[in-house]
Amino acid sequence: MGGDFAPEAIVAGVIEALKEFDLSVTLVGLQDKIEKELSKYDYNKEKINILHAPEVVGMHEPATVSIRQKKNSSISVGINLLKSSGHDAFISAGNTGAVVASATINLGMLPGVDRPGIGLVLPTLKRFSFLIDVGANTDPKPEHLLQSALMAHVYMREIFSVANPSIGLLNIGEEASKGSDFSKEAHKLLSGRFRDFIGNIEANEIFSGKCDCIICDGFVGNIVIKVSEGLMESAGALIKREVKKDPLAMVGAALMKSRLQKVKRYADYSEYGGAPLLGVNGLVMISHGRSNPKAIKNAIRAAQREVDHKILETMKAEIYKK
Amino acid sequence: MGGDFAPEAIVAGVIEALKEFDLSVTLVGLQDKIEKELSKYDYNKEKINILHAPEVVGMHEPATVSIRQKKNSSISVGINLLKSSGHDAFISAGNTGAVVASATINLGMLPGVDRPGIGLVLPTLKRFSFLIDVGANTDPKPEHLLQSALMAHVYMREIFSVANPSIGLLNIGEEASKGSDFSKEAHKLLSGRFRDFIGNIEANEIFSGKCDCIICDGFVGNIVIKVSEGLMESAGALIKREVKKDPLAMVGAALMKSRLQKVKRYADYSEYGGAPLLGVNGLVMISHGRSNPKAIKNAIRAAQREVDHKILETMKAEIYKK
Repeated sequence: MGGDFAPEAIVAGVIEALKEFDLSVTLVGLQDKIEKELSKYDYNKEKINILHAPEVVGMHEPATVSIRQKKNSSISVGINLLKSSGHDAFISAGNTGAVVASATINLGMLPGVDRPGIGLVLPTLKRFSFLIDVGANTDPKPEHLLQSALMAHVYMREIFSVANPSIGLLNIGEEASKGSDFSKEAHKLLSGRFRDFIGNIEANEIFSGKCDCIICDGFVGNIVIKVSEGLMESAGALIKREVKKDPLAMVGAALMKSRLQKVKRYADYSEYGGAPLLGVNGLVMISHGRSNPKAIKNAIRAAQREVDHKILETMKAEIYKK
Repeated sequence: MGGDFAPEAIVAGVIEALKEFDLSVTLVGLQDKIEKELSKYDYNKEKINILHAPEVVGMHEPATVSIRQKKNSSISVGINLLKSSGHDAFISAGNTGAVVASATINLGMLPGVDRPGIGLVLPTLKRFSFLIDVGANTDPKPEHLLQSALMAHVYMREIFSVANPSIGLLNIGEEASKGSDFSKEAHKLLSGRFRDFIGNIEANEIFSGKCDCIICDGFVGNIVIKVSEGLMESAGALIKREVKKDPLAMVGAALMKSRLQKVKRYADYSEYGGAPLLGVNGLVMISHGRSNPKAIKNAIRAAQREVDHKILETMKAEIYKK
């Protein structure tokens, strides 16, 4: 309910998902608003339930609001529904901090994991890389990065069928001696645990596809995705501004359009749709606040893939064992 | 001497600079190699001196090498020349960590500044923003960010004639309550000192030109510039790959070429050429290891501008006073 285009885009995305995938959905939030949206569509009534949640966590409210004050928000009610009933996964395009806090407190952590991490599937020059953490844990200890790496390793192997996912530590400088005190400590822990640890990876290599799992703290990971988003927007605006000065260049742009759109589609966050919140004891998918219906549909597909691959059970078995 | 294209690109850049600007240069490094390069050009012999430095710090050696082992490296000898003689500024395209370490130890710090910061002039949708620190201090305390902000404020005002430079803290989330413990503490210090403090700025706004001086720790700042570099390269490669599949799109690209080159030139690091190392008691300019002659020439111009604007004296007077 708190996302930028809720509940319109959420409901539209769910309707799309029901056409393509075999699943059923419970929509959690303000019942009248959801019903109003649903009334626009023709769909199988048996596949959609509504669970009323009278409160909404705003996008700019502190994360703890969902736990302390708004216990009847769509986020809190949804997370508790995941915990108590036969639901397989919870998806939200609302306040990320609130989802992280509510999931951590209410679902608890996987054995062997102390803090959650948000993983993001990034398109690269090769195929996909998995960047974790992009914002759940902004003050981690080095061992939290090790736990993130263990989860990322399972995720890339199970969900993307990468046989031996390589692990890289996002750092400034290639050598083990480079970086902050924190990153040197994390480097030691990772190199002691993974055969597939390729060492430090610098930020200019993130999109090259050099490494399957890129590990960093939540502050740095959030900076990476936001600077990428902003740079593409600014570069695009700059190019448009220049091209508009020159009719020939505008013709050129028109001729390139279909190819450029293909690139744009490839790089579009909505193609994957959701970022898994890993480490909590339940499947939680966080979508961009500006998610359009396609992003929501694809987040549902991504969550379904996690269910099909029994990702939670595999993580529980492997991480605790290690 | 340690840079990727040294001494060829350095010497070529100096020759270019001497044609355009009124100054003289001492080239520090392996005398025979420098003389060999110089012999390719016709230039005013009175404007170039050579100071032999028999050792070279490699790009991947630890920063402390220049201080402890290689006291006769071009970096150490150059920094000491700046300290002892009538030279106004020192420029290096070599090992950044070594330059920072050598400058800090040998030149000492400005009164009121505890740690150096590397500032980078970034092209934005408006004009320029100044990002500091991009890699000198990877484990700062919040007060070091305040010191960086004080220096950035002077720099943007004096060098770029911005009347009241705005100060923003690079953070994840807009509200003062957002971010890591470190960034919350830095937010407090900055808001207590600057009238022109606009609060937190998110990474997607860096290139929008919203803020004149963007303050962050050296780890995060280095990530920002490297991810930007890598993303532009990967996006470019991706677009080329797509366009090559379609002859019409290739024609389109040809028609857009001159405009795209203009954008490229605008965004090109070599247009500014050097990143000032602020906080040390001397004018030190750090250039990209891959600097071409144009970048070196422009770094010399940037250093000359710092000299003309008496930036060191102004910083000493203002920061100590505060």
